[in-house]
Amino acid sequence: MSRARQSDVLIRNEAFYNAFSTRDLEAMETLWAGEMHVSCIHPGAPPLFGRDAVMESWARILSGPVQTSLQCLEPKVHFLSQDLALVVCYERLGAETLAATNIFALEASDWVLVHHQAGPLASEIAAHADVPSPRLLQ
Amino acid sequence: MSRARQSDVLIRNEAFYNAFSTRDLEAMETLWAGEMHVSCIHPGAPPLFGRDAVMESWARILSGPVQTSLQCLEPKVHFLSQDLALVVCYERLGAETLAATNIFALEASDWVLVHHQAGPLASEIAAHADVPSPRLLQ
Repeated sequence: MSRARQSDVLIRNEAFYNAFSTRDLEAMETLWAGEMHVSCIHPGAPPLFGRDAVMESWARILSGPVQTSLQCLEPKVHFLSQDLALVVCYERLGAETLAATNIFALEASDWVLVHHQAGPLASEIAAHADVPSPRLLQ
Repeated sequence: MSRARQSDVLIRNEAFYNAFSTRDLEAMETLWAGEMHVSCIHPGAPPLFGRDAVMESWARILSGPVQTSLQCLEPKVHFLSQDLALVVCYERLGAETLAATNIFALEASDWVLVHHQAGPLASEIAAHADVPSPRLLQ
């Protein structure tokens, strides 16, 4: 796959984190697929299925009291096919670090999100934990 | 997509959890893609890239001291294309509940894993936390 295509995906991936950081729900809505099925696993939360549920969650999060920026670090793009790309990256949310999975699909010439999962690194869990899970810390 | 294809993916997804629960590294090795790029985010851990790193992590986990079974609950399959399927599910690891993303690709007529992420639900984090993250609990 060409570097140009990688760059296209990375730009959209960055736009996702910018939409979060600037509380831009309209931008967030255009970043998620309109035709393909979407799903989302926010950190610590049960999976959400379907555009309505996912967009409602973003409306709630982006209008919520937490005004922290979300920064994407070290994104790695791997194309699953011509029209599907997997981005794996770290997220910095204030002082917290998470790891994330973002799946993008090419829909009407734009790369759009079809799935997102983010979860905290063990160091974040351990910082608050009396009894960290053995699997969490391996 | 046909129910038969959904069923094919679910059987392989279940085989992944069985391989974990029975500590079967050989089965785990056949369940992950041999040709496509693979990546894996174990709960709390940094992302791993490439088959060698991912298989080393499974060898370590499956030979480790934790002898808990890993059960998949409520798996939902959505086909991203003819050859790519996304499974979103819950995982029960002993008394702990996680949410997971599994991406399967059709490689030489078999559905094989190309990416896995699992992360704990907030109730699991909150049970040990003095200061749970606002985003974790939304």
